[in-house]
Amino acid sequence: MPKSNQKFKKKQYKIYLDHASATPIESSVFLKMIKFSKENFANSSAIHNSGVKIKKILEEIRKEVAEFLGSHSNEVIFTSGATESNNLAILGVVNKNTQFIFPHIIVTNIEHASVLEVCKYLEKTKKAEVTYVEVENNGIVNPKKIRKALKVNTILVSVNYANNEIGTIQPLREIAKEIRHYKKKISMKNSSSRLYPIFHTDATQAINYLPISVEKLGIDLLSFNSAKIYGPKGVGVLYIKRNTSIQKIIFGGDQEFIFRPGTENVANILGLKEALVLTNKIRNKESARLIKLRNYFLKELKKVSKTIFGGDFTINGSLKNRLPNNINITIPKIPSDLLVIELSARGVEASSKSACKTGDNKASHVIKAINKPARPHENSGAGGNIKEIDGSLRFSLGRSTTKKDIDYTIQALSKVLNKLKKWYD
Amino acid sequence: MPKSNQKFKKKQYKIYLDHASATPIESSVFLKMIKFSKENFANSSAIHNSGVKIKKILEEIRKEVAEFLGSHSNEVIFTSGATESNNLAILGVVNKNTQFIFPHIIVTNIEHASVLEVCKYLEKTKKAEVTYVEVENNGIVNPKKIRKALKVNTILVSVNYANNEIGTIQPLREIAKEIRHYKKKISMKNSSSRLYPIFHTDATQAINYLPISVEKLGIDLLSFNSAKIYGPKGVGVLYIKRNTSIQKIIFGGDQEFIFRPGTENVANILGLKEALVLTNKIRNKESARLIKLRNYFLKELKKVSKTIFGGDFTINGSLKNRLPNNINITIPKIPSDLLVIELSARGVEASSKSACKTGDNKASHVIKAINKPARPHENSGAGGNIKEIDGSLRFSLGRSTTKKDIDYTIQALSKVLNKLKKWYD
Repeated sequence: MPKSNQKFKKKQYKIYLDHASATPIESSVFLKMIKFSKENFANSSAIHNSGVKIKKILEEIRKEVAEFLGSHSNEVIFTSGATESNNLAILGVVNKNTQFIFPHIIVTNIEHASVLEVCKYLEKTKKAEVTYVEVENNGIVNPKKIRKALKVNTILVSVNYANNEIGTIQPLREIAKEIRHYKKKISMKNSSSRLYPIFHTDATQAINYLPISVEKLGIDLLSFNSAKIYGPKGVGVLYIKRNTSIQKIIFGGDQEFIFRPGTENVANILGLKEALVLTNKIRNKESARLIKLRNYFLKELKKVSKTIFGGDFTINGSLKNRLPNNINITIPKIPSDLLVIELSARGVEASSKSACKTGDNKASHVIKAINKPARPHENSGAGGNIKEIDGSLRFSLGRSTTKKDIDYTIQALSKVLNKLKKWYD
Repeated sequence: MPKSNQKFKKKQYKIYLDHASATPIESSVFLKMIKFSKENFANSSAIHNSGVKIKKILEEIRKEVAEFLGSHSNEVIFTSGATESNNLAILGVVNKNTQFIFPHIIVTNIEHASVLEVCKYLEKTKKAEVTYVEVENNGIVNPKKIRKALKVNTILVSVNYANNEIGTIQPLREIAKEIRHYKKKISMKNSSSRLYPIFHTDATQAINYLPISVEKLGIDLLSFNSAKIYGPKGVGVLYIKRNTSIQKIIFGGDQEFIFRPGTENVANILGLKEALVLTNKIRNKESARLIKLRNYFLKELKKVSKTIFGGDFTINGSLKNRLPNNINITIPKIPSDLLVIELSARGVEASSKSACKTGDNKASHVIKAINKPARPHENSGAGGNIKEIDGSLRFSLGRSTTKKDIDYTIQALSKVLNKLKKWYD
């Protein structure tokens, strides 16, 4: 038995390093939801006392969320999650404006599936044209390239705040500035103020670690959910700036300022708010802690890589402009799905590619995007049909992650690499 | 102090009679959800052990729900609620088929807002034509009238199983039969089998009290949610029969057999399943109990009405083909919103019109529908601009409702009527 196993007994450990995919709900948040649910269940649209009480609570929560975003209360719309928020942002703007113009949309080529798939649908059904602006090899988009893609019929620009796979942070303020300048120029030409391009961001991954002020960011629409910030699943927000040209995509009642019908799940909305408050409170300290842990992880990883491969692994995306908790690497020659499964057998839970897209077996569009022009495949001869570009391994740290966890993970990874290396060499 | 107040002290009581609008979550269901949430939070799309475990649990739950409906597992799609399910049913069928035909939809004129508003949107945007088949004065549609409305381009017929305001039950089997015969006739003419008209029902209100077998009912699409069956809010189901021509309306991941993207809220889905199991277990006994209670309520109401008005109130909709827990009456001359507020001040929580539509101040489309041609307004001269047809008062009983609650409610209502009668006489 190797020495390392004396230190960490197998099965004793479960180390969850997939926080970008899902976070555990905080006990304090959960307890508040439980307490609320026991006493409050009425429909917030009802006019009897219980209904009025819940409606009042809902509006108080909305106010707190608005304060957090630096917005007005009636600009905060509760949805079933970030996927719905992103769909509402894009389809809602397109459907609202489609009578007046043929809509043009600009996105980066590393958006989340819930943005890209909407765009593909709109293209396929000829409801809009879409420009996919390529990010640089560091996983960050150049605002000048967004500027260059703007056209008179561009109604929407959608750029994620931070990427879900590689954690790279996009320069939202600079993009907003480019859009503002473009709007001004066109307005002067036509002597009329323009309502678009509307600027949307999916801030789902960012909200744990980056300050959110919709005004400072220059954002018109902003999506996030609660499941990624240690809150309950099944609830999200779309911030809709006043006077934004958008309409609902699901029809029924007049809830959520007519933008989202259906009885509000106030317990979940309360959970989202509580999670947000906590996130905000610990943001700076937790970010600093995770950056330290991540750098330690990378340093140790380098040692392992040197020992086993005599070389280095690839870090996907900029390390500088990146979420504190994200590590995304490509280990040459070994399929990343296999790495995840072998690590999981040793109690370490990581992710290959984006967990949301794990089911479809396609190569990651993000890893592809940051590897153009085709990076030389130094090892492409070995291992049969295994391509380096197919594999990306993501460790996303979280509130419970400790240095001990990292040490254990490094040991587990060494063992896995030593085992698999023999097969694929 | 009147004698009645000796028996029921004010403020001591809170009698919730708005179960058609929202139900409290059952403790046993809630506890299971809490236990599950504590241990399980990973993303069901992840391939590590925690993800695989949750995916397995999700599929076991799906199987149980499918058994309940008498369907296959992969015909059960989890959504964020009945509103989304209804939208997916209608928009999903229209969007899927719009390239081939100009879609025609048939609904009754007493569908829920989440069906009617979708239809209005489709008409407004010229994406479909809609026939609103009028129900009879008893609140029930004549299947022959549905048959008569069927056309070669009818892709969808959507009829609720039981109405949310007046609780009347629609003859789904007979309607399914008419559709089947029509399909057969057209198929023989064209020597090809037809995939439509597709038959959808919103079973949200029915599922507590009526047996659901999609096969026996002859249904292709069936919606319901968990919030109305003593389960958690924010989760619903759309049953989609195999080979039904439908596509998703929200885009992103490939979850839910590609029909509904977004990370599944498995805790909520578990809650829905547990609520369904319990509902199924107690259905017959609870239905019988509530029918008895309701009849007692109506008998006592008649006495009150005789005493105060020297006449009778109107029961809206058939009493025979009706959900066991629903009482919907029109009390002449007094605004029903005021009745709800006055009752609420005395601890009795009822509803005027549909709670989902309470905010918009419009007259109930259901009460309007069952009062054509214009019913003689015996009292229309009195009370200024108060119209009898505007007011409908709904008491929807539930699992916690007792005979004592009904007695108290009757007393409270007498007092309220006596007070308000003076003003509006």
